[in-house]
Amino acid sequence: MEELEKLYEQIKRIRRAQEVCNLFYWDMQTVMPAGGVQVHSDTYNHYERKLFNMETSKELKDVLEKLSEEDIYKQLNPTNKFIVKRMLRNLEKNEKIPRKLANENIEITTKAQFNWKRAKKNSDYSLFENDLYSLISVKKEMYRFTDPEKDAYDAMIDKYEEGMTSEVIDGLFEELKKELIPLLKDVLEREKNANRSVFEGKKFDISRQKEIQDFLLKYIGFDFSKGVVGETEHPFTMSFNSGDVRITNHFYEDNVLSGIFSAIHEGGHAIFEQNINPDYDNSVAGGCDNMGIHESQSRFYENVLGRNINFWIPIYDKIREIEPEFNDISLNDFAEEIIRVKNDYIRVDADELTYCLHIILRYEMEKAIFRDNVPVDELPKLWNQKMEEYLFITPLNDSLGILQDSHWSGGDFGYFPSYLLGSIYDGMLLEQIEEELGSVDEILKNGDIIKITRWLNEKI
Amino acid sequence: MEELEKLYEQIKRIRRAQEVCNLFYWDMQTVMPAGGVQVHSDTYNHYERKLFNMETSKELKDVLEKLSEEDIYKQLNPTNKFIVKRMLRNLEKNEKIPRKLANENIEITTKAQFNWKRAKKNSDYSLFENDLYSLISVKKEMYRFTDPEKDAYDAMIDKYEEGMTSEVIDGLFEELKKELIPLLKDVLEREKNANRSVFEGKKFDISRQKEIQDFLLKYIGFDFSKGVVGETEHPFTMSFNSGDVRITNHFYEDNVLSGIFSAIHEGGHAIFEQNINPDYDNSVAGGCDNMGIHESQSRFYENVLGRNINFWIPIYDKIREIEPEFNDISLNDFAEEIIRVKNDYIRVDADELTYCLHIILRYEMEKAIFRDNVPVDELPKLWNQKMEEYLFITPLNDSLGILQDSHWSGGDFGYFPSYLLGSIYDGMLLEQIEEELGSVDEILKNGDIIKITRWLNEKI
Repeated sequence: MEELEKLYEQIKRIRRAQEVCNLFYWDMQTVMPAGGVQVHSDTYNHYERKLFNMETSKELKDVLEKLSEEDIYKQLNPTNKFIVKRMLRNLEKNEKIPRKLANENIEITTKAQFNWKRAKKNSDYSLFENDLYSLISVKKEMYRFTDPEKDAYDAMIDKYEEGMTSEVIDGLFEELKKELIPLLKDVLEREKNANRSVFEGKKFDISRQKEIQDFLLKYIGFDFSKGVVGETEHPFTMSFNSGDVRITNHFYEDNVLSGIFSAIHEGGHAIFEQNINPDYDNSVAGGCDNMGIHESQSRFYENVLGRNINFWIPIYDKIREIEPEFNDISLNDFAEEIIRVKNDYIRVDADELTYCLHIILRYEMEKAIFRDNVPVDELPKLWNQKMEEYLFITPLNDSLGILQDSHWSGGDFGYFPSYLLGSIYDGMLLEQIEEELGSVDEILKNGDIIKITRWLNEKI
Repeated sequence: MEELEKLYEQIKRIRRAQEVCNLFYWDMQTVMPAGGVQVHSDTYNHYERKLFNMETSKELKDVLEKLSEEDIYKQLNPTNKFIVKRMLRNLEKNEKIPRKLANENIEITTKAQFNWKRAKKNSDYSLFENDLYSLISVKKEMYRFTDPEKDAYDAMIDKYEEGMTSEVIDGLFEELKKELIPLLKDVLEREKNANRSVFEGKKFDISRQKEIQDFLLKYIGFDFSKGVVGETEHPFTMSFNSGDVRITNHFYEDNVLSGIFSAIHEGGHAIFEQNINPDYDNSVAGGCDNMGIHESQSRFYENVLGRNINFWIPIYDKIREIEPEFNDISLNDFAEEIIRVKNDYIRVDADELTYCLHIILRYEMEKAIFRDNVPVDELPKLWNQKMEEYLFITPLNDSLGILQDSHWSGGDFGYFPSYLLGSIYDGMLLEQIEEELGSVDEILKNGDIIKITRWLNEKI
């Protein structure tokens, strides 16, 4: 079919431009020296603009509309039907954004990411404040065009979790808050008499941490022939296509668990991406519109599997072989440590209980920004107030507070709820897996985690 | 001037496309997993074609010809004069290449680089042989178009060393061969009674090798705010512009000197690139048409400075601090080792004496390929014969022989002589530096190497 050929020609053009943008993003995050910022940003923005133009072009629209005509559409196979529908929906949304505004969005996002990194490093919110203000304004403006009938923040949530609304989330989160805050208080009271952490004062060599990371990734099913691991300020996963899925990690000498659980978390994302149907590669069909589902995968590995002592039974000797420091730490002490509840500042290192409160806090911050229009200069104070209220601590500085996450600097407002939704989905997944495969404890104890990976790859 | 603005608009377009190609190249060499080859190659080739089209476009030609008109040209400043002349010359050369042939060249070069890596890894020449054949044919064909009046191999040499011919090189190299082969024989005879290497049997941790590398690079003047270091099969330097210059290294546990001297060598290239006039950034004017001069910089650091015991006097304690294995090796033993003459297989690890013979061998191989049309399946045998004749050893396999260098797989025929020309220039540089700055031995001993770096940055 001629029209289909035209579509695939357009998809190829878009895929190439997208690949260039992704590669610049990856390089800027993982490799690029400071001296390259100016020139690379210019080129990156140029290709982001090109990509936006391609995705909203008249040629593409013509092809998609033609293919959507009833008598043609019904002849398409299910994959192509899905691609046509999804691309047309995206195009119809994005074409409403004035070109000038779209370009502004691209520029401010690139700039904000660099300034956020500087701000976090120097723990100086003022280095990021202006960019945050611009990002918020641009996003509000954009959603006014794409979703004029919707509340802007609801539109943002819908972007990452199709069909979800803040009304639903409000209900879920209020319920959680009511249970979790008193529970946390209780647990902390009891923790007062608990043993000191076996990790306290210990330092772990970074190159051996990397070895452990690689071992764990292989163990849970990450395919190194279709992926790599880099190092960044904030761990993330990015996928070019199912044959090239990249994750990053961040290591601390005095916090070996951070790198271990970030690796397992991003590994979960990556395994999901590496196992997407290659037919969908390089088109919107390969993307995921339910980041809650995506996060359910990463958080399933991280929490349901990784924080289970049985996960470690078959491999703890291997970990000790790589890093003899673990010889001083019994498996039981280790297992206790990885589920210890601690009211600390950093979300990515949080236990399962406080993690929920970290997310609720961010969700409320985003509502404060987009619904109550709280000015940017008051946000750090608001953040700290909420930390006191939910976690009973006050961040020592903004790096440990409002500057800790990269999401907002990339314009990703409305993403955070996905993490918690992911955890909620995980409860359902666990039930279903146990019904079909039997006890997860047993599977883990026997070193058969790949059975679970295979199940997830097939079913999700 | 309106025409000048148009030119700079074109230069910006070209710079962006060039940057995309460079970034893909960098990524394919340093990061990309095997599963990404197919898709990334397609995109890389696409942008290489685009770049070629831009560099030979009618719009660019019109602007350059307009700016070359006498009354306009004379109003240009020296930088712009240089840019116009150089770009027009390149355009007039490249536009003679039929588009189809140019595309073929792009495709085969990308493919050949992957296959060479596989071939080298598996020490299986047959995995690379067909690509080498195609590369040779395409290059011959291309030079028939761009330099119909010239011998193809002379045209290739001219590409890397403007104005140089094989006649001049023949004279130089024949003379060297006459002196060096008997000298090598003599030295080897005497070496028979020399002590065993103090490095024999020792293993060096790779992460500490990297620490040493970073220390050395900083010490000689590499600016990490304008550069990074990656890891590849074969070390190289690539420059986006003076603010982002990248080098790579390769490490062997059982050969710590390889990583050390590769770092100093590539560091020399990079320091040169980081200090090019930023006015020339992003245009052909920032490029170097005398790779012999480029190699004179890398080889000056590697050999004239790095193989001088005085280089190590102020820093040997620091090296020992990073890698305690060096505590067993006295500075004198170390200094003796780094100038030890050894007839070994690998060029990049060769001492100064045998290095020359490695280059002469490659130069003669290239003449055999392009002048005598020796078939590709006979090349490994010819390589090994020459190794026996000049270095008295036979490579154990093709990885240690004809497959060791990456140059041919990238289509870089005619480059090798630049290394030796660089060494010849270095003799002159040393003389001039000592005249202006005093004894290099003293400067090194006092830890003042930055004085030399500054001199080189200013004068070269």
